[in-house]
This record gives sequence, C-alpha cells and structure tokens, in this order.
Amino acid sequence: MARIVMKFGGTSVANLERIRAAAAFVRREVEAGHSVAVVVSAMAGETNRLVALTDEAGAPAPALDARFVEYDAIVSSGEQVTSALLALVMQNQGFRARSWQGWQIALRTDEAHGRARISAIDAEQIGDAMDNGEVAVVAGFQGIAPSGRIATLGRGGSDTSAVALAAVLGADRCDIYTDVDGVYTTDPRLTKQARRIGKISYEEMLEMASVGAKVLQTRSVEMAMAHKVRLRVLSSFDAPDANAIGTLICDEDEIVEQNIVTAITPDFNEAAVTVLAVPDEPGNAAAIFTKLAEMNINIDMIVQSASREAGFANISFTTKEDDLDRAIEALADVQTAIGYKSLQADRHVAKISVVGVGMKSHAGVASTMFRTLAEKGINIHNISTSEIKISVLIDSDAAEYAVRSLHDAYGLDKVN
Amino acid sequence: MARIVMKFGGTSVANLERIRAAAAFVRREVEAGHSVAVVVSAMAGETNRLVALTDEAGAPAPALDARFVEYDAIVSSGEQVTSALLALVMQNQGFRARSWQGWQIALRTDEAHGRARISAIDAEQIGDAMDNGEVAVVAGFQGIAPSGRIATLGRGGSDTSAVALAAVLGADRCDIYTDVDGVYTTDPRLTKQARRIGKISYEEMLEMASVGAKVLQTRSVEMAMAHKVRLRVLSSFDAPDANAIGTLICDEDEIVEQNIVTAITPDFNEAAVTVLAVPDEPGNAAAIFTKLAEMNINIDMIVQSASREAGFANISFTTKEDDLDRAIEALADVQTAIGYKSLQADRHVAKISVVGVGMKSHAGVASTMFRTLAEKGINIHNISTSEIKISVLIDSDAAEYAVRSLHDAYGLDKVN
Repeated sequence: MARIVMKFGGTSVANLERIRAAAAFVRREVEAGHSVAVVVSAMAGETNRLVALTDEAGAPAPALDARFVEYDAIVSSGEQVTSALLALVMQNQGFRARSWQGWQIALRTDEAHGRARISAIDAEQIGDAMDNGEVAVVAGFQGIAPSGRIATLGRGGSDTSAVALAAVLGADRCDIYTDVDGVYTTDPRLTKQARRIGKISYEEMLEMASVGAKVLQTRSVEMAMAHKVRLRVLSSFDAPDANAIGTLICDEDEIVEQNIVTAITPDFNEAAVTVLAVPDEPGNAAAIFTKLAEMNINIDMIVQSASREAGFANISFTTKEDDLDRAIEALADVQTAIGYKSLQADRHVAKISVVGVGMKSHAGVASTMFRTLAEKGINIHNISTSEIKISVLIDSDAAEYAVRSLHDAYGLDKVN
Repeated sequence: MARIVMKFGGTSVANLERIRAAAAFVRREVEAGHSVAVVVSAMAGETNRLVALTDEAGAPAPALDARFVEYDAIVSSGEQVTSALLALVMQNQGFRARSWQGWQIALRTDEAHGRARISAIDAEQIGDAMDNGEVAVVAGFQGIAPSGRIATLGRGGSDTSAVALAAVLGADRCDIYTDVDGVYTTDPRLTKQARRIGKISYEEMLEMASVGAKVLQTRSVEMAMAHKVRLRVLSSFDAPDANAIGTLICDEDEIVEQNIVTAITPDFNEAAVTVLAVPDEPGNAAAIFTKLAEMNINIDMIVQSASREAGFANISFTTKEDDLDRAIEALADVQTAIGYKSLQADRHVAKISVVGVGMKSHAGVASTMFRTLAEKGINIHNISTSEIKISVLIDSDAAEYAVRSLHDAYGLDKVN
C-alpha cells in the first residue's frame, strides 16, 4: 500500500462534470489499494471572481498589512468549496472521503499573508485517516498562520500544497492533473513535431518553469527537488487509463539515458529595455537595478556594452511585458540622478531557451543553437546562459520559426 | 462604553454598495464609543448558489450523515467571504476591523451538521479585541463541532449567531439590520393602516414568528428571551439616523403601556387536510399524527368532529402548503391500517392570527374577532388559541379583507 498525493487544478474541477471526472481518477488509485490525498484548486474562474470582489472592496496595498489577512479569508473560500464538493461526490459514489481545510490539517505558514510560505504540516491525523481508507480531500493554496488566521500561498500555491503534503506524508508520488498530458519538448501549438517528455529532471523543469513554461509553478518544483518528491504531470481530460504515464519529474539519477537537450522553451511575455549613454562611473548599474528591485520588477538578460560616445555605456535588460510600463517609470525617476541620455523599449521580442542537463557534459550545444539561427537568418539581440540552459532574445515575429528550427536541429522529434 | 452586536442579513450585504452602507451603520456605533461586533449573513443569493452546487454534487439525504459535514463546509464559505469583505471595507475607511470565522471565535456547536445547536462561545478573545477598539466582523450561521469540522446552524442561523454572541458578550443591545424598518401591526402590503410597533415582548414576537411573520427566526427570539438579550429590528436601507429606533423586542416588563392586541398576522402558506370517517376507536388519532411526525411534517390546528355516520369521526388539521403532498402520501400509507374512508385537501386557506400579551388579562378579544369576521360574512373553518394568540383558518380569498377588518376592529392604526 503506497501513499499517493493527487492534485487537480482549476480547469480540472471547473464544474460538477469535471469534479466527477476527477473523482474517477481518484477511485482508480483507491481501488488499486493506495492511501490517497487529493489537493484541489478553486473551480476555474472562482479565484478571479473572489479577487475582483476584494478589489472592489478596496484592494490591499502592495505593502503587507491587515488587509491582506482579509484577502486571504476571502480567496481561500474557493478551495474550501471545491474540496467539500469532491468529498461529497466521492461519498455519493460509496467511497469514504472527507475535506480538510488548511487550518484543519494543519498546514502551518508564516504571517506573509497573500504569499505565505509553508513552515510545517501536522500530517499525523490526515495520514492516519488516509491509511484507514478515507480519501483526504485537501483545500490547496491555504494554511494557517501563527496568528490563527487563514494564510494563502500565492497564485498557483495549490501545486506547492500538494508537493509539501507529499513530502511530509512520504508519498510515493505526487500526481499533478491538469489540462495537458505532460511536459512537451516545446509548445505543441508552435510545431507538430513537439512530443511529450517521458522523464525530466527537477533542474530542467525548474529552468523551463523559470522561462515561462506554465505547467508547474517554479516553487513547487523547487520544493519537490529539495524533498525528492517524484512529481508526475497528467491530463484530467483523458479517460482514466492505467497506461497513461504523463511526464515524470524526478532526480537526474533516475533518468538512465539522458538527452543532451530536453526542450525548447519560448517565452513571448518579454520586453527589452535599453538605457542609452549611461555615464561610465561606478555605481550607475547598481543604481538602475536597485531602483527596479525596489519596485519589485523582475529583470533578466542584462547586457552592458560600450556606447558610441567615449565614457558612456549602454545597459540592456529584459523584463516581463506586464512590468514594462512600471520599469520605464522607475527609470525616468532616476534619470537626473544617473544622468543617462535616453531609454529604448521593445515589446516585440521573445526569449527562446534551450534546456538540458546533458549540456553540463556535452560541448557544442550553444554553437548548434547560434549556427541554426544564423542559417535561418534570425538575428540574436541578447544571450544569457546557465549551467543547463541557453537563452537568446530575438524578434517575436521570428520566434515560431526559431522554435521549429531548433527543435529539428537538436532532433527532439526523434529521441526519447 | 457599551458592547453592541449588530447583524446584517443577506439583502443588507448583497453587494459592495450594500456592504459599504452597512459599514456606515457600524461606524456610527464605533464613533459613539461603543465596542462593536457585527454578525453577517452571506451575500443575498450566495447561499442558494452554494446549496445548488451541493445538490448537483448529490444532495445529502434527510438522515444526518457524513455528507452534511461537507454541505456545511461548502455553504459556510458564503459568510466567510462577507465577513472579510466588510472588515476590508472598514479597514479601507481607516477603522480597525478583522473578520472572525466560526472556528476562530470559537463558536462551539454539537455535531448535528446542517442544523447544529450552539453549545458554547469562547468570547474572551473577541471581547478583548472589541474593547480594544477593533470591530469584530463575525461570519454568522456557523460554528465548529466537537470533531473540529465546520457546522452550520440551519437557514436563518445568522440571527441566532448574533443573539448568542450578544448573550455571552453581555451586550447592551443586539441590532438586527434587515430590509424592513421594524415589526408591523400587520403586513403593510395588505393595508396602509399598518404601523410600526415601537416595542413588543419576546412572547408576542415568538407567536408572530411561529405563524409566519418572517422578520426574525423563532429560534433567535427564543434565545433572546432566555438570555434577556434586547433585540432591535432596523432597516439598513434607510440612511443612518440617530433617531431611527425600529422595533425593540424586549421583556414584557419593559413595556409600560401594553396594548391588548399588538398585531394581526396572516399566513398564506397553509393547507387544510381532513381525514373523513375515521373509525372512532382509541389510537386512531395517535396513528395519524405519529405517522406525520415520522415524516417530519409539522401540523397545526387539529380539530376532531363527529362524522355523519355513527361510530366515525372526522379529523382535520393544517400543515404548511409545501408539506401537503407528503402529508397526503403519508396518510395514504396508513389508510388500510386505520380504515378511514377518504381524504380532503384544501390549499386555498389562510391562517389569520391576533397576537397580544394583553389577552392574558383582558376578556373579549376572541369575541371581537369572531363578531368582526361574522359581520363581514367571512366563514371560519378552524380555530386554535394560545395564551396570547387566537388563530382562525379561513378561505385565502377572504384573508386580505379579514386582516383589514380586524386591524380596524382592534384600533391598531390608532394606539401605540
């Protein structure tokens, strides 16, 4: 008898029909003799509805204050409803099941309401109930802060709830049911050659998540890696099938035949900013990025190059497109202090990343990328690299062509 | 500094505009220097939406079982959202406020999920917070059962939450804000002569609630009477006005000049059943009413009369119109066992009640009622009485005329 944690996202519990479909997946695990905990998100659209109500009441200020505590009490109700509905559906099908709210488990967090971090989970009672044959249906995304108030984990926090629960329960697997049947070598909407990846390492999944692959929250993958929780991504929109394996996200050691490159990940939510003619004096780059950090604007792909004028430099970086306007405002505020000449912004860019743990031990991955793009006449604006990822910034018009060309060049349609 | 409990029903918190209007009433009490707890219902329509979801998931069986526990987790989320929204609105207006869920107070109940009774309230923490100037916004209708699960108090339970909280807090007043500005001498839709009652005793209010006046739940009035909580009914749809007094529901002793008759209460949700030619043998009436009780059908106004055939009797009673079909089914089941001849049912009846504590010490109230109806040519089918109430069953077509005539006859438009 293994302990299994299953997690169903918002689209997988969007209505009673979908909740019944989710119940069928749970039943399969129960009937296989497993002890099962199911973590659920709010019904699709419900969190947005609740956040809109909160906004109408007077949105909490960015600084954390008492108002975020009320925000948490409001938005956490979505998962509360779904967890009880799924428990009810399972009971009506003759199974023993009960819902667990975050405060009932208890899943303990810090006091950072709206983006709380998990500090501990009292898993004994819920583990006993599961081992006793009762399906534990857990409201994701929420816990209880030291003050005794409800705290939410931030958007996408249900994945994190599921992984944390799997870790403390010593679960054999944490299955994430979503609206895709796994992690793909690239976005299947961009090329028919895209194929599902059977196994992928935590490190690769983290790089993919950080560059915009939406399947899993970065934070939940980090937690899975830290606690060696084997994660599986599966579709809840296919019929339950014992042979469906989805994508397993696991330790690198578990992947016997590692590909050099595992995936090509495009990110269209990028914008480039160039600060032109920054006086070449110590502290100016720091002043720019300190200001952006204060505004809570994430930046990426920083490049400094010499300006045409002597004694000046150009500093480029990318940010999320949604943050571009705020980034420009922030930099305008410090123009006098820094004395740069002007700003350029470009929304029509995309970041294409090649991800693979095999890069660590194989040379030539970068040269293949640059040569392929050059052969196709695609101009590279910026380059950034990590140990297992190479990202380039290109015009967004060329992104789809670049993805297809790179997918071919690394032979991702052929290997597994 | 007095402690005040205020309660806002579903229509009084139906949307953010109404919630802001409610906040204005709360502010007035805070600014008057009071310690304030506010009990809120779910936004109008929200409980129905949640109950419909529950029904779709598989409605809990009438017998209490585990499914009602999940029902409670679902429907209680409505009050959770409203309480946090009101707290947020007050915070955004510069007041200190926080929401309290049933389990946070804690308001302790028994395990009768879906219709739980309050067993205790841990009022110290919430009372301290109130006295310290923080408005306590309490999710009504819910508490925590000994099992640690959420339990709801049944429909209209927020009134009961408010009164119970007022009792344990030793509140000076429990103000019930609703969509009418008080309790009236009769339904104002039936006669323009209806006027608001300034003060009414618990006993009278109980009789009115039991015969269908919808302003307050019977249970909350019973609890107010038992704990001597002074209740006030006020409108949240009028602008806050220091002179608005609504209707005070209080101890009989507090009402110096007691009217003989206080109100005329019509109830259109009645149906009459007559069981014809029941063999006149011991135990037959008991068999009929035991069967109805087993089916959880409330009955009222029982009359037994001689049948035209010797050795047989007719037994009449009234029930709620909604229960009529089930009552007829239940009686059909026992026809053979009891040996009665046939059943008659009549939906076109109404119960008109005259209520007043003055009846205890004044004769002639009943005769005025019967004489008035006779003069107007209105036929009485059934009569039932209590110490402070006389009810008659008449054709529903005549009900409005009867109400107006009785309102005149007792001079309810003139006295206070």
